[in-house]
Amino acid sequence: MKDQKDGAQDKNGLLRNVHIFDSTLRDGAQGEGISFSVQDKLHIVRALDELGVAFIEAGNPGSNPKDLEFFEEVKKIELSNSHLVAFGSTRRKDIDASSDQNLRSLLAAGTEYVCIFGKTWDFHVTEILRSTLVENLAMIRDTVAFLVGEGRTVFYDAEHYFDAFRSNPGYAMETLRAAAEGGASALVLCDTNGGTLPDDIQLMTEKVVAEFGIPVGIHCHNDTGMAVASSILAVKGGAVQVQGTMLGFGERTGNANLSTIIANLELKMHIPCIPAGRVADLTPVARRIAEIANINLEGGMPFVGHNAFAHKAGMHIDAVTKNSTAYEHVPPDAVGNERTFLMSEVAGRSMIIEKIRKFDPNIKKDTPLAAQIVARVKELEHEGYQFEGAEGSFELLVRKNMGKYKPFFDLHYYKIIGEQPIDDVTCTAFAQVKIGVEGEMAITAGEGDGPVHALDCALRKGLERFYPGVRQIRLTDFKVRVLDSRSATAAKVRVLIESTDGEEVWTTVGVSSDLIEASWLALVDSFEYKLITDVEKRFRAYL
Amino acid sequence: MKDQKDGAQDKNGLLRNVHIFDSTLRDGAQGEGISFSVQDKLHIVRALDELGVAFIEAGNPGSNPKDLEFFEEVKKIELSNSHLVAFGSTRRKDIDASSDQNLRSLLAAGTEYVCIFGKTWDFHVTEILRSTLVENLAMIRDTVAFLVGEGRTVFYDAEHYFDAFRSNPGYAMETLRAAAEGGASALVLCDTNGGTLPDDIQLMTEKVVAEFGIPVGIHCHNDTGMAVASSILAVKGGAVQVQGTMLGFGERTGNANLSTIIANLELKMHIPCIPAGRVADLTPVARRIAEIANINLEGGMPFVGHNAFAHKAGMHIDAVTKNSTAYEHVPPDAVGNERTFLMSEVAGRSMIIEKIRKFDPNIKKDTPLAAQIVARVKELEHEGYQFEGAEGSFELLVRKNMGKYKPFFDLHYYKIIGEQPIDDVTCTAFAQVKIGVEGEMAITAGEGDGPVHALDCALRKGLERFYPGVRQIRLTDFKVRVLDSRSATAAKVRVLIESTDGEEVWTTVGVSSDLIEASWLALVDSFEYKLITDVEKRFRAYL
Repeated sequence: MKDQKDGAQDKNGLLRNVHIFDSTLRDGAQGEGISFSVQDKLHIVRALDELGVAFIEAGNPGSNPKDLEFFEEVKKIELSNSHLVAFGSTRRKDIDASSDQNLRSLLAAGTEYVCIFGKTWDFHVTEILRSTLVENLAMIRDTVAFLVGEGRTVFYDAEHYFDAFRSNPGYAMETLRAAAEGGASALVLCDTNGGTLPDDIQLMTEKVVAEFGIPVGIHCHNDTGMAVASSILAVKGGAVQVQGTMLGFGERTGNANLSTIIANLELKMHIPCIPAGRVADLTPVARRIAEIANINLEGGMPFVGHNAFAHKAGMHIDAVTKNSTAYEHVPPDAVGNERTFLMSEVAGRSMIIEKIRKFDPNIKKDTPLAAQIVARVKELEHEGYQFEGAEGSFELLVRKNMGKYKPFFDLHYYKIIGEQPIDDVTCTAFAQVKIGVEGEMAITAGEGDGPVHALDCALRKGLERFYPGVRQIRLTDFKVRVLDSRSATAAKVRVLIESTDGEEVWTTVGVSSDLIEASWLALVDSFEYKLITDVEKRFRAYL
Repeated sequence: MKDQKDGAQDKNGLLRNVHIFDSTLRDGAQGEGISFSVQDKLHIVRALDELGVAFIEAGNPGSNPKDLEFFEEVKKIELSNSHLVAFGSTRRKDIDASSDQNLRSLLAAGTEYVCIFGKTWDFHVTEILRSTLVENLAMIRDTVAFLVGEGRTVFYDAEHYFDAFRSNPGYAMETLRAAAEGGASALVLCDTNGGTLPDDIQLMTEKVVAEFGIPVGIHCHNDTGMAVASSILAVKGGAVQVQGTMLGFGERTGNANLSTIIANLELKMHIPCIPAGRVADLTPVARRIAEIANINLEGGMPFVGHNAFAHKAGMHIDAVTKNSTAYEHVPPDAVGNERTFLMSEVAGRSMIIEKIRKFDPNIKKDTPLAAQIVARVKELEHEGYQFEGAEGSFELLVRKNMGKYKPFFDLHYYKIIGEQPIDDVTCTAFAQVKIGVEGEMAITAGEGDGPVHALDCALRKGLERFYPGVRQIRLTDFKVRVLDSRSATAAKVRVLIESTDGEEVWTTVGVSSDLIEASWLALVDSFEYKLITDVEKRFRAYL
């Protein structure tokens, strides 16, 4: 294992590590409202590798041709910590493993690691699969053996293990034995329906650990609201691989939340499960994945949520100010999160001071400038702005408040027109922009797929005569989030734009109840960020 | 106890009930974004009483004069199942309990039950309270004894019990003994910082149960993501009162979620904790409380969330159709929830057949219509459509393919104009729509906050002359998701609109690389859905 580290003693005195197996891209994609593009998936792989999970289950190439395309793309990424895993099921009944099309696709994915799930529960074999108990054992054994024969390292997911064990313990054990005989490198016990209580999970895990000389894994779902606890107690019972999804995405109530489990293992149980020091990246990585999935990360999510260390009761705030352990079980920075006091002025100050230092290293901690910027940030946040994930706009805001900024152009007006139907099928929108630059006027027009694209074209044309650098700007991401969506089409929207000039990447934000205006504001910030950065570079080159 | 029922044997063979103690109105009000009016609180009391929790902790009259006002109001409500509890802290240091103003306010609340919290952790006594260990014991004993002397039944909340026990077990036990000597009717162990692991909670609870002849309660916070499991294991360790909040509201990561705990106790452990039969009210009560608190109940919340029984993987849908226990640990109607099938690329034919049956109950499983609709759905999904969460559009699609649909109007054109700056600051966008309805033409204009709002106004004006029913349509939600957002402003967008006419709620979807067109498509589907549904209602009324 690339990520092998020195072991640590867990509470039971066992010297071992735990491997994290992330299934955000596979089981997580079964969650309501989750739908990843190939680009999204590649971004998530990078984030998980940076955090350092041992395994990334990246898709099911047999059931989904789009996943096979993704496996081609992902080969181009150099991973530092993680191994990719392709997922599939045991061979179809009554055929040879080698002639099973899904298994062929699985091999085509070209991963060293493969995860195979099979039936453990007698009722599922006869009623759902409509096969025999004997044939199911052969399906498990054959499939694992075939893949091992093809040079793969195989983890075996025993679907419904705990229900199966309660129903027919002898048969459940036989299925595990079949996988072991086939050459499986780990036996993963799945609480597929999510209905087993944590102490039962621990007991049944202990039984399997005692029975087989093979590493045991755990895979829980949150239907009783206890997936994290069940995973933790399984580890106490001897499991050494924990499967789940980084933010708890998954079918129904979701899978076990790995961000919570990683923090508990590392900080509460002192069992290493990601490379040393990386647990401090947990919050930024979790938030980046939420951003890619375009979901709001729950404020109250343990360790990584915006409110995980937010204090509201006056008594708690007083006590935490005296001694943070008074109402905090771990220090927020241990997981890369921050302490906040709700409805108070202290929030965010230190981060703002840090940013000011970028432009003026000699600034003092008690500068009135910081208070002024805090006040402005709070005002904008109240309007729906969010500067996390919009560093470009935040930097412009700090510059403006420091007087280290001059506008590069003035908007006189913009006008957009959208029409349906139109004759020119390549474009549905037209924009006109009038700007003043260095005493001159530029009136330009653009067309595009939709009004924002058209505005982008028109503004670019107007600026490039004066600032050729804008030609290098490429917008690489565009996100829209409806705030207070209950106001329907009159609701405020927040637009985030990511841009690059090939060297640097920056993100900017705009908020308005008019989608076009919100996009315009983010667009303008993006262009201004590039222009001021270019000026500074030129200036430094002359020093 | 009014709600006393016959006991049941739990797994350890103990015959007993568990009392649910809800603190939504007190500890829950410490959650971010939670703020209850007196009316809200009265509504929540009614909902909790209907569900039948044993205790409702309704406020802290000592620290909050508004709470005292509420206690006056709540006296007018006749409760059938629940008892109100007023909350407060031990007396101030170095004074008589009888002269403590907060305790006086607590008595003024006039509840039979009172809950008092006190310090258990030596470090908190000396560092935060800045008192002595001896005086703290006197504060606990005096306070409980004073309130008992005034005729109250007192529950004692031992703040930070588990941290305290780890730090100084002898002193932690002494504080409980002081409460017992004062006459407390229950000793409640609080994991105030939420950092204790569930198996440790069970062990430490067992110790207290063995030491005192008084009922023991548990109060957990969710900082490790295991508050539910910790509460459940405490019950296994002998606790007979579980404190929490109905939806897990609370400071930081929230309190233990009682809706999850109640379902687990009743359905998984067969320990009665609310009146017989009431567990089927769990989902409606949980959703009503979310509505009163004005928060979106998390879709994935165990047992009561909208997705708690939602299946997306095709294989799961097929299996659940054969036998629901295949992927459900309890039947959804046991908790008053519903099974749903999410539409997705992976979802199978069977759910499309089910939808067709709504319009033609005699349809056969192998109808070519199903294959035709599956093909169309796949085509649209490839374009970026998603019918999960867009049931209205999906129903229209099925109708169109079945020939059970006629268009209500034809679009001749729409045109939108957006401008900045503009004179009229209330509106930034204008729309013009030309539609043909029943041989006539309607050209209408609208203005609004942004182009979609303007289009909505214009289309509505055009239609209402012909179909007055459109006046009832209110758009209640608007969501934008940028697909393949890496194409930046030229990317495809998916717009979801939720609408209601006061009776029914429906959701529709539109996809285009032009944001305006995507919104238009979803808007048109919303209006058409309403119109066809109205026609059918009228038609059925004549049958």
